[in-house]
Amino acid sequence: MNYTIFGESHGNAIGVTLTGVPAGLVLDFDAIRFEMARRATGKNKLSTSRKEADEIEWLSGVFEGKTTGTPLTLIIRNTDQHSRDYSQLKVLPRPSHADYSGSVRYNGCNDYRGGGHFSGRLTAPLVAAGAIAKQLLAQKGVFVGAHIASVAGIPDTLLDPTSHQRELLSAVARKEFPVIDDLAGQQMQQAILKAREELDSVGGTIECMVSGLPVGVGSPDLDENVEGIFARHLFAVPAVKGLEFGAGFGLANMRGSQANDPFCMEGGAVRTRTNHSGGINGGITNGMPVVFTVAMRPTPSIAQEQDTVDLTTGQNAKLSIQGRHDPCIVHRAVPVIEAAAALAACQLLFL
Amino acid sequence: MNYTIFGESHGNAIGVTLTGVPAGLVLDFDAIRFEMARRATGKNKLSTSRKEADEIEWLSGVFEGKTTGTPLTLIIRNTDQHSRDYSQLKVLPRPSHADYSGSVRYNGCNDYRGGGHFSGRLTAPLVAAGAIAKQLLAQKGVFVGAHIASVAGIPDTLLDPTSHQRELLSAVARKEFPVIDDLAGQQMQQAILKAREELDSVGGTIECMVSGLPVGVGSPDLDENVEGIFARHLFAVPAVKGLEFGAGFGLANMRGSQANDPFCMEGGAVRTRTNHSGGINGGITNGMPVVFTVAMRPTPSIAQEQDTVDLTTGQNAKLSIQGRHDPCIVHRAVPVIEAAAALAACQLLFL
Amino acid sequence: MNYTIFGESHGNAIGVTLTGVPAGLVLDFDAIRFEMARRATGKNKLSTSRKEADEIEWLSGVFEGKTTGTPLTLIIRNTDQHSRDYSQLKVLPRPSHADYSGSVRYNGCNDYRGGGHFSGRLTAPLVAAGAIAKQLLAQKGVFVGAHIASVAGIPDTLLDPTSHQRELLSAVARKEFPVIDDLAGQQMQQAILKAREELDSVGGTIECMVSGLPVGVGSPDLDENVEGIFARHLFAVPAVKGLEFGAGFGLANMRGSQANDPFCMEGGAVRTRTNHSGGINGGITNGMPVVFTVAMRPTPSIAQEQDTVDLTTGQNAKLSIQGRHDPCIVHRAVPVIEAAAALAACQLLFL
Amino acid sequence: MNYTIFGESHGNAIGVTLTGVPAGLVLDFDAIRFEMARRATGKNKLSTSRKEADEIEWLSGVFEGKTTGTPLTLIIRNTDQHSRDYSQLKVLPRPSHADYSGSVRYNGCNDYRGGGHFSGRLTAPLVAAGAIAKQLLAQKGVFVGAHIASVAGIPDTLLDPTSHQRELLSAVARKEFPVIDDLAGQQMQQAILKAREELDSVGGTIECMVSGLPVGVGSPDLDENVEGIFARHLFAVPAVKGLEFGAGFGLANMRGSQANDPFCMEGGAVRTRTNHSGGINGGITNGMPVVFTVAMRPTPSIAQEQDTVDLTTGQNAKLSIQGRHDPCIVHRAVPVIEAAAALAACQLLFL
Repeated sequence: MNYTIFGESHGNAIGVTLTGVPAGLVLDFDAIRFEMARRATGKNKLSTSRKEADEIEWLSGVFEGKTTGTPLTLIIRNTDQHSRDYSQLKVLPRPSHADYSGSVRYNGCNDYRGGGHFSGRLTAPLVAAGAIAKQLLAQKGVFVGAHIASVAGIPDTLLDPTSHQRELLSAVARKEFPVIDDLAGQQMQQAILKAREELDSVGGTIECMVSGLPVGVGSPDLDENVEGIFARHLFAVPAVKGLEFGAGFGLANMRGSQANDPFCMEGGAVRTRTNHSGGINGGITNGMPVVFTVAMRPTPSIAQEQDTVDLTTGQNAKLSIQGRHDPCIVHRAVPVIEAAAALAACQLLFL
Repeated sequence: MNYTIFGESHGNAIGVTLTGVPAGLVLDFDAIRFEMARRATGKNKLSTSRKEADEIEWLSGVFEGKTTGTPLTLIIRNTDQHSRDYSQLKVLPRPSHADYSGSVRYNGCNDYRGGGHFSGRLTAPLVAAGAIAKQLLAQKGVFVGAHIASVAGIPDTLLDPTSHQRELLSAVARKEFPVIDDLAGQQMQQAILKAREELDSVGGTIECMVSGLPVGVGSPDLDENVEGIFARHLFAVPAVKGLEFGAGFGLANMRGSQANDPFCMEGGAVRTRTNHSGGINGGITNGMPVVFTVAMRPTPSIAQEQDTVDLTTGQNAKLSIQGRHDPCIVHRAVPVIEAAAALAACQLLFL
Repeated sequence: MNYTIFGESHGNAIGVTLTGVPAGLVLDFDAIRFEMARRATGKNKLSTSRKEADEIEWLSGVFEGKTTGTPLTLIIRNTDQHSRDYSQLKVLPRPSHADYSGSVRYNGCNDYRGGGHFSGRLTAPLVAAGAIAKQLLAQKGVFVGAHIASVAGIPDTLLDPTSHQRELLSAVARKEFPVIDDLAGQQMQQAILKAREELDSVGGTIECMVSGLPVGVGSPDLDENVEGIFARHLFAVPAVKGLEFGAGFGLANMRGSQANDPFCMEGGAVRTRTNHSGGINGGITNGMPVVFTVAMRPTPSIAQEQDTVDLTTGQNAKLSIQGRHDPCIVHRAVPVIEAAAALAACQLLFL
Repeated sequence: MNYTIFGESHGNAIGVTLTGVPAGLVLDFDAIRFEMARRATGKNKLSTSRKEADEIEWLSGVFEGKTTGTPLTLIIRNTDQHSRDYSQLKVLPRPSHADYSGSVRYNGCNDYRGGGHFSGRLTAPLVAAGAIAKQLLAQKGVFVGAHIASVAGIPDTLLDPTSHQRELLSAVARKEFPVIDDLAGQQMQQAILKAREELDSVGGTIECMVSGLPVGVGSPDLDENVEGIFARHLFAVPAVKGLEFGAGFGLANMRGSQANDPFCMEGGAVRTRTNHSGGINGGITNGMPVVFTVAMRPTPSIAQEQDTVDLTTGQNAKLSIQGRHDPCIVHRAVPVIEAAAALAACQLLFL
């Protein structure tokens, strides 16, 4: 199972072409809409005011409500574009956006309006693809859930990595602001609104659990190791700048005697007492939940004046970004990270 | 350019098959031996006492001292094996090793002696491949260097991510213990020896810089983004459990106004004042050094008694690992991370 | 450069997602329409009466008339479907169609209407993709042209494989019935009409030339050899059952002294006097035109009663295929073969 | 399952690295030696007098006689090289060899001795890999066999494509000259010896059957269709210049009513009465034997004086090839084609 996401923020449509989807999956369209709604914009002051219906049009690969097994393409029309907002991007690249690097990469020919192909809007078809992946995984007993682990340095309660916390994570998914500890969530939202008032933005981290993967999936080799396969999908999500499995960077400061996960028997099955390894040994699943955390950078679009360069004159310049932007994308990114994780898990299982 | 690493710790040989190597590279065999020596074992009490000559035998793809452009296979014979040390691994899997997950993955048929294909010894051909990659990169003005960023929580001085610190990193590469700050390095070594005395092990982090990549390499898409391509190669290195680009997880706690890297002109070229993005915007290089840090778990092989299970009886059990082991692999992993990074950079440039 | 074709004959749309298209190609939309028209149906009695506008809708990857370098998706709406014609296909599989093999492959879930994803209609987006590929190739001086080499055993004049016959092939492309020798073409058309009257169909062969590929492209290795790369694209075209390069099967009956292409100098360049090798030695281009021939089976849809089985009862059965069908697809396949060849040539040049 | 063949005719060793081999296959080393012997040289006057032991050295991926599931590398040392024979190849390229195209491709850096990486000798590791593939296939009930279909225009009896002729093909495999009709075989051998006397060479065709593939394997899509997967492996075999499935090029001259394979029930199973489609409909197996024929060009190495060019002076020149050569490689290629087909079948089944 593989996918190609296509489209530009202000083009005709964005979408995804999925190959290798097994035939015969009865699609739960409500569940797909639910995932799309979790990512959708415009719900409140925490997000951009751009409003998109994000109605999926199924072009191929689905027949009588079931996947056909042949390539599946779905698209989402772009409707609420304000193209005039973006005309200066060709001249004054926005700091930490891809305006400059992308322009060089594509010889100035890429669609720059609204970030074009780099827009966070491209995560909408990713969520749709991930929703299909989740339904495939459910047939195999695999569940994917995530929550905000922190925003602006304010931590949420973390998951217990040794237990399959499906109910907890299902409940989190139904929340407007997907945290475990709602009190922490309120503090995060205040921090987001404060940043917004100060014409700024905040970042955060997302913790994700994939539970139910069987023991013995993956390999130590290039392109087959579990960490690498998740990384392949996760680093393709805009704004992800870090990824750690299990205790991750914390492992670097542990001793082996602390870090090692002792094996034990439980109900006739082998498991580990702790799960600092994040469910992966030697690039292969060990039957414990696969747990990872990603770091999301703060939205680079901020309303403050910033330093940049004028690419036409080759002089230093000032830039004030206009338009509608998210002061934080971490809460909207939770279903996106789940989607990428679900596609990774499908790659592991259906390769 | 792609590669397959093959071999088992106690098999006939380990090696690598490289495809897509451009023809005509005059190999600097001394430089390759230098890289191999940096990784080699047995130098002192910080490492395992297993001694391997690690003599490379060039089987194909090299003719009259130059690469031919056809598949290049090199092998390293295994010579200093003590195979009797490992007989219990099939019964009592070592915590946080791949004995259990690997056995399930390969139906109990994998070579378990000394970790088999999971052994850290398999990084020797990776370093050899990376040494070739480094020579290809040098022709394009690209340089790869790394240093220990921390061991056992003791930090080294970090790199200035806004400048191409080739001399500094070249000097570090010639040190027996590859740190920038030798005083910190001595503390790290003491921590390693202390862990060894206490039958324990320590982990750490490695910071790596790839300088000289042109602007505009990569893409936001799956399998083409710079972060993902580095991740592909880095997570295939044993013991890597975390990866962050630029300020990485630190970005999650920054505001956009801090995190954004303002553009400026310098000597007629576009650059950024800071480099929190690690040289990558939208999955594409922006001309600044690509900087990343990996987290290395502590060696799971420790001499202390550990809890495990007896796979034949299905009972809880105790395990004392015999044999020769590294109390820390971080210092030996520095050239390995450089090798993986060099191969990733080659993939970006020679794709 | 790679592509995925998606869609079903009676679904919402068919299309193609192209990745790796270089940025900045100014698309010649008239040339694309010209190629689409060459493949289009309904022109005369030689083809099916199904009429499709085959209007391309550009969803992504094109901005201000130029390719952006990001994934390019184009679609073609299905409009002239007569879905009721096809209801019996699930029960009575058509001989030499994919009704039976496809149903097993996709667990009975594939869209069977009009052949679904197996329909020859899916070659429309292939031709569109090929038209883009041709424009990329033209920038590198590479030209792709083809003609009917035979229909129903009636041969056309063959190309001189030692010269770059671009004018000849450009003229052929403008003909309604793309042969070199129009007299032979008339005989072929009579044979097609006769077959149609007799409720039957005919097959044929297509000869294709790719001229202008530089010397030294390809490799002897798996997935890199020129023959294999062309084969990859050509066998994905429905109805292609054979492929030969240069003198092909004729080489099997030659002696080495006849088959070998002697080198000679001409205008300061190395060339060969004959071109029995089809421009390829050791999987690598030698600078002569790449020439190949494909065998196209006769359309399996014929109006005569045929033997089949009833998949619901497991009994032998009789089948009469209803609906609109081509008595010959060879003439319509000429631009399809050119498209596949152009995409193969792009893979060779832009890999 | 995938493979990379490496090595040069006069280098240290040739070999293959196989990935994706399932764990736990008990290797039948005698069967592997049997296949190697079928391909081996020096048996008689029909072949080159170069004698190679072709002893396999197993470097990795095999433990206690079984495959481990990790990358498998095997090598064969080169021992009987006469390197001085080949010194003129850099100056005077041999017609229809890769001396010229390869030299351009690899900037003159490839190992030219004995054809280097282009040598037919590289088919020895391919046969070894194929022998492993055959053993994997046997576990799934799949059998691969081939025979010479013609040499120098002299035809062997062809297979009945509608029946699984395993006994017949097993018997052919044990013959020194692998034909069905030994009388035709004698005529072929006389034609080979006559060509040899006349300082010439002959080509031929090989017919191959893969029986036992289940219904419903493959897909119509690029890189997944059965024809394309076989083509991928077969065109990587040196000297293959044509490939046809089932009736192949013969289909081009048939009418649909002749070409179509009517379905019928037999013993409760669906099958076809004829098998002009070669067991493949819509790129998917239909349960009938997969049958194909390849065209092998005559050996380009002939002892007659030939026209060529002097690459150093840019003048036309004459060339007389020295050394030991095969007047025909078709009989030695039979196990090579089987090996490539077996690897293709594994790709279809173990993808």
